[in-house]
Amino acid sequence: MRVVQKFGGSSVADAQSIKRVAERIVATKERGYDVVVVISAMGDTTDELTDLALQVSPNPRPRELDMLLTAGERISAALLAMAINDLGHDARSFTGSQAGVLTTAAHGDARIIDITPGRIVTALEDGDVVIVAGFQGVSQTTKDVTTLGRGASDTTAVALAAALGADHCEIYTDVDGVFTADPRIVKAARRIPEISYEEMLEMAASGAKILHLRCVEYARRENVAVHVRSSFSDKPGTWVKDLKEAPVEQPLISGVAHDRSEAKITVVGVPDQTGKAAAIFNTIAAADINVDMIVQNISHDPDGDGPDPSRTDISFTLPQSSGAKAIEVLGAKKDDIGFTGIVYNDAIGKVSVIGVGMRSHPGVTAKFFAALAAAGINIDMISTSEIRISVVVGADFVDKAVQAAHTAFGLDAEGEAVVYAGTGR
Amino acid sequence: MRVVQKFGGSSVADAQSIKRVAERIVATKERGYDVVVVISAMGDTTDELTDLALQVSPNPRPRELDMLLTAGERISAALLAMAINDLGHDARSFTGSQAGVLTTAAHGDARIIDITPGRIVTALEDGDVVIVAGFQGVSQTTKDVTTLGRGASDTTAVALAAALGADHCEIYTDVDGVFTADPRIVKAARRIPEISYEEMLEMAASGAKILHLRCVEYARRENVAVHVRSSFSDKPGTWVKDLKEAPVEQPLISGVAHDRSEAKITVVGVPDQTGKAAAIFNTIAAADINVDMIVQNISHDPDGDGPDPSRTDISFTLPQSSGAKAIEVLGAKKDDIGFTGIVYNDAIGKVSVIGVGMRSHPGVTAKFFAALAAAGINIDMISTSEIRISVVVGADFVDKAVQAAHTAFGLDAEGEAVVYAGTGR
Repeated sequence: MRVVQKFGGSSVADAQSIKRVAERIVATKERGYDVVVVISAMGDTTDELTDLALQVSPNPRPRELDMLLTAGERISAALLAMAINDLGHDARSFTGSQAGVLTTAAHGDARIIDITPGRIVTALEDGDVVIVAGFQGVSQTTKDVTTLGRGASDTTAVALAAALGADHCEIYTDVDGVFTADPRIVKAARRIPEISYEEMLEMAASGAKILHLRCVEYARRENVAVHVRSSFSDKPGTWVKDLKEAPVEQPLISGVAHDRSEAKITVVGVPDQTGKAAAIFNTIAAADINVDMIVQNISHDPDGDGPDPSRTDISFTLPQSSGAKAIEVLGAKKDDIGFTGIVYNDAIGKVSVIGVGMRSHPGVTAKFFAALAAAGINIDMISTSEIRISVVVGADFVDKAVQAAHTAFGLDAEGEAVVYAGTGR
Repeated sequence: MRVVQKFGGSSVADAQSIKRVAERIVATKERGYDVVVVISAMGDTTDELTDLALQVSPNPRPRELDMLLTAGERISAALLAMAINDLGHDARSFTGSQAGVLTTAAHGDARIIDITPGRIVTALEDGDVVIVAGFQGVSQTTKDVTTLGRGASDTTAVALAAALGADHCEIYTDVDGVFTADPRIVKAARRIPEISYEEMLEMAASGAKILHLRCVEYARRENVAVHVRSSFSDKPGTWVKDLKEAPVEQPLISGVAHDRSEAKITVVGVPDQTGKAAAIFNTIAAADINVDMIVQNISHDPDGDGPDPSRTDISFTLPQSSGAKAIEVLGAKKDDIGFTGIVYNDAIGKVSVIGVGMRSHPGVTAKFFAALAAAGINIDMISTSEIRISVVVGADFVDKAVQAAHTAFGLDAEGEAVVYAGTGR
C-alpha cells in the first residue's frame, strides 16, 4: 500500500514542528504503508527569500528567482528526512528534479508535464520513506529548475500519487477539512465528509482556499482520492473523490464559497459595433490577465432623452492584482476602440453556491436570489455553471450574503463549528 | 579568454556586498573575458543551516546534511546572477550538479572525480556570465548531492578553470594575498608576489589558511595559475604557479607558517616488539584520523635504574578535533597492545619554515634551531620535508617562534604590513 502525504509550510515552521510531522509520518509507515511525503518550505522562508531577491534586484529574472526559491523546500525536505532518521527509520530527501517532476519552462508558474519517479520507486523498494521537495520541478526542455506557482505543493503530491499508483493522497493543513462555508463567517458551518471533484473544482474557483484549482483538476483527471485533513489531530477530514455513485438523497447545495480578491472594471460607452467587445478582451488577454465574469449592460443615458442605442457598457471581473495592468492596457486602446471611459471598483465580493444537486432542481437560483433579497442585498453581476451560481455584491455585503445562503439551503449545523485561522500554501 | 573567479562567503555576506561583487564581475566581462564565477554561501549561512540540522537531529545523516547545506550556495548563486542581470549583463546560475561537478559519494568530504561542463560551455558561448554554486557536486555513482568539505569552493574554482581551459583562476578573499607570515603575529610580514605550487602546498599543510591544500594540489596537477587577491581592492595579490624557471637568486625561505589546531598524543610504555607501532597506527587509521608528525622516544625510567629497554614511548600529532576519538579507540586496545598509558596535550603549536631555496642550502635547519634557541624556545618534535622544516613547541611560544624565524631568515619588511582579519571559507 502506498500513500502520499503533503505537509504545508505552517506544519514545518520550526524544528519542533518538523519533529512532530516526522512522528506522524513514521506512524503511517509503521502501519505498513510505503510513504512518500511532499513538503513545502518552512513557515515564511519563501517570503524571506523573495525579500532577499528584491534587495538585490528590483526585477529579478524568473529563472534565477526559481533557483533561489527552490532552496526553501530543499531545506525543509532535508531536515524532515533527518528527523525521521532519528526516529529509527530510513528516509531520503529528493528535490523536484531528482524526483522526476518534469515541467514546462514557464518559470514561476510551470505546469507538470510528466513524472518519472524512478529514484522514488527505488527508494521505496529499499524500504525508505521518501521526502520530496514540493512546489518545484525541472523544465523538460531547458533542464532548468522551475517552480509551479502558489498552491503547487498540493499538485506535486497529487501528481506523485497518480504516478506511483498510490491508494490516496493526504493533504495535511491547519483546518479540519473543507467546510460548507468559511467558519469565520458562518459559525454554524459544517465539515463536508465527502465532496465530488466537480464541486471541489467549483469551490476552489469560487474562492475556497483550501485546495488549489490545479491540484483538484489533476486529481480528477487521474482519479486520485484526496483526503484533506488537519495536521494537528487524527480526526477524519474531507475526502475529495469520484462521487458518481453518490446516493440519490444528496443535498441541493454542498457549500457556499466567497472571494474578496476580485475587482470589477466597467468599460463605459463602447460603440455598439461588431468586434468592439472582442477588441477589449483581446487587449486584456494579450496582457495575460484572467477575466472571470462578463456582463454587457444597456448603456447609460448621456443626453437625458433615453439610452444611447449606439453605445453600450461592458463590465468584467478580474483579480485585483491585475487591476492596474488592465487599466493601463485598456487606456492605451481608448481611441482605437472608441469607448468613453473606464470605471474600476475593487470594493466587491463574489458569493457562490455550489452543488451537484442543483442539476436536477431548477429552483435553486430563485431560492438563492430570494434569500439575498430578504437580507436586503443588491446583486451586481451573475454567472452560473451547471453546478454553481455566483453573484457579485458590494464588499460590505459578502458576510451577510454567505450567511443568508448558508441558512436558506439548510446547511447550518446544530452546534457551532470550530473557528480556524487561515490556510497554508 | 576565459577566467574563473571565486568569491568567498564574506564577500557576499549581504545584498550590498553581492551587488559590489556583481560590479567587479561585470568589469572583468567588459574587459573581454568569458567569466565563470564560483560562489560560496552568504556569510554565516552554512553555520546557521548546521545549527538548524542539530535542532532537528543530534546526529544528522551526512547525505541529508549535504542536501541541506548545498541550499546555501544555491541561494547566493541565484542572487548574484540577479545582481549581474540588473547591471545589463546576462548571467545564469548553476548548482554543482548542473555544472557537471562529479564527485565521490563521501558526503561531507567528497572529492572531485571529473567535471563535465557542457552546460557551462553552452552558456559561455551564449555570451552569459556563468555562476556556479561552490562547495558542492553530485556523486557519480549514487547521483546524490555531495559537499566537498571546508575550503572546497576554491577547489571547485581551480577544477573548473582546468576543465574549461581558463587562462587562470582568481581566488578573491579578504586579505591582499599570501604573506611571509601571519601579519597579526609578524608586523613586518610581506606579501609574496609569486610562490611555487610546492611551497604553497607546504604552507597550506603547515597551517596557512589562505588556500586549501586540496585546491593547491589540484592546481599543481592541472597546472592552473592561481591569483589570490583581495575582493576589497584592485591591488595585485599572490600568484601561485609553476616557478621551475625561477631566478637563481631565490630566497632561502619563502614564508613561515604556524598551526594551533593540532594536539599531541603520547602512548606511554609500548612494548618494544615488532608490530606494536603498526598496531597503534592501524587503530588510529581505522578511525579515519589523520596523523601528522610521529616520534618514537626512549622510554622513561619506571624503576629509577635507567630506561626500561623493553618499553618505549610513541608520540604523534593529530587534529585537536580528533583527540577524543583517538583516546577512545586507543584506550579500547590498551590491553591488546600492552602499553601503560596515554598522555594527551593540546597546548602545543607547530611552526614551519618553507622554501625551495633550502634544497641547495644545508644550513637552514641549524639556522632555524639557533634562532629558536636564542629566543629561549624549547623544541618538542621535529619533522622535515625537502622544502620544509616543522617544529612543535608549547602553545605559548608559537608567536615568539614565528617572529624569531621570520627575522632570522631576513623576511622582515622595512615598514609594517597591513593587519588583516581571518579568512573566509
